[in-house]
Amino acid sequence: MFKLTIQPRVSETDGMGHINNTCVPVWFEAGRENIFRIFNPDLSFADWRCVVVNLNIDYIKEIFYGREVEVHTWVKHIGNSSFILEEELYQSGELCAKGTATYVNFNKKVRKAEPISDNIRQELEKHIRK
Amino acid sequence: MFKLTIQPRVSETDGMGHINNTCVPVWFEAGRENIFRIFNPDLSFADWRCVVVNLNIDYIKEIFYGREVEVHTWVKHIGNSSFILEEELYQSGELCAKGTATYVNFNKKVRKAEPISDNIRQELEKHIRK
Amino acid sequence: MFKLTIQPRVSETDGMGHINNTCVPVWFEAGRENIFRIFNPDLSFADWRCVVVNLNIDYIKEIFYGREVEVHTWVKHIGNSSFILEEELYQSGELCAKGTATYVNFNKKVRKAEPISDNIRQELEKHIRK
Amino acid sequence: MFKLTIQPRVSETDGMGHINNTCVPVWFEAGRENIFRIFNPDLSFADWRCVVVNLNIDYIKEIFYGREVEVHTWVKHIGNSSFILEEELYQSGELCAKGTATYVNFNKKVRKAEPISDNIRQELEKHIRK
Repeated sequence: MFKLTIQPRVSETDGMGHINNTCVPVWFEAGRENIFRIFNPDLSFADWRCVVVNLNIDYIKEIFYGREVEVHTWVKHIGNSSFILEEELYQSGELCAKGTATYVNFNKKVRKAEPISDNIRQELEKHIRK
Repeated sequence: MFKLTIQPRVSETDGMGHINNTCVPVWFEAGRENIFRIFNPDLSFADWRCVVVNLNIDYIKEIFYGREVEVHTWVKHIGNSSFILEEELYQSGELCAKGTATYVNFNKKVRKAEPISDNIRQELEKHIRK
Repeated sequence: MFKLTIQPRVSETDGMGHINNTCVPVWFEAGRENIFRIFNPDLSFADWRCVVVNLNIDYIKEIFYGREVEVHTWVKHIGNSSFILEEELYQSGELCAKGTATYVNFNKKVRKAEPISDNIRQELEKHIRK
Repeated sequence: MFKLTIQPRVSETDGMGHINNTCVPVWFEAGRENIFRIFNPDLSFADWRCVVVNLNIDYIKEIFYGREVEVHTWVKHIGNSSFILEEELYQSGELCAKGTATYVNFNKKVRKAEPISDNIRQELEKHIRK
């Protein structure tokens, strides 16, 4: 599991007085940095590999400004050329949002999805939720 | 159906050279303004009613800077206190993303979901996809 | 003068109940699209030219969700390789923010500022405030 | 001086391949959290005090995804009801952006600027740059 601690920003709140729902996809994407590194160790955009094809997010509790948030990221499923991440967001120990993100291993140069190599597959498998 | 035309911004692109996936939830939320008005005609945050509980988005095609985008919003389902929207995003006539957003009719003062009134229900029904 | 009409988004409000100050630079940048096109007609990032070196923004009045905003963009000064834009933001006919943005005409390939060509200079001059 | 470490996000990059300029005001605002706490210890929006009236930012070097950024925040000047912050942003030890933010001590209930109290003034003075 990967963990990222985020300090919510005033600019991420909305007129309802809590964090706007559109920040959750932003924070979940931030939590995927170590997944992106498995495909692309120096994170260069020229060699970027991971293209999102689906996001599914359940909003469970309000998230507030002024208290840290933790994003937890697991690998849920590894297909031939795609993989699914499982993500949870906690504040003050409570689960506030959870979801999945489906990605494809995409080769920009030839503009095609490609099978996930054995090396990368083994690395991803280390982060499957127990 | 509600239609919103959006001009993508440089700040909405990412290092891959196209629109970042996290802008799609932002644009879909922008497309819901007329739905929010049905519940809360002057859009005041003090009387806000619509609280999101789920987002599900399929990313179908890259979206580019420099060309307008159209967000289409329909009502898909009206439950007792919740409702589901159906949303599509087009650029240059092509479907680039689609999804659903599930909302609850929430009363902030008593902090509880409430049944959707008949008046609002009738108004929402006008926007069900034919 | 270039004019851009923007529909503020819920995600652009903050817990104070109005538009967060960090949206103004985003909206002003959106208002510069036609300036960017003068340097780079198809807006391709490979040929991007305009690199910001200074932003200065005065916040004059609160900006609200639910009412359109207008961004006005002029050219204020054209130097050798740099230029300054003048920007104003109106809501309901009132000036809410104004500022300047200083840009450099940058050649990405050689990573150097370059003089603004006569053609581009003449085009920019058409947008100087009278 | 207050220090905030930020991990840049993919969604904060733009088509040029680096961090978009509009993220700098967002990060600088994030770096002001401890200033906001001096005026409003629990950071509640109902008692919010700090209203921005000017931002001035110099962009000095490109900022990249994949490496942490540090925001440094000082108090530069304390007026009667206003104060100026001084802000710098570093990546890999290099100064990438710097600026000032001018705020007013605003009382939302009466909608007026108010003198900064002696207690708050003493607290702010501790963060003046030496």
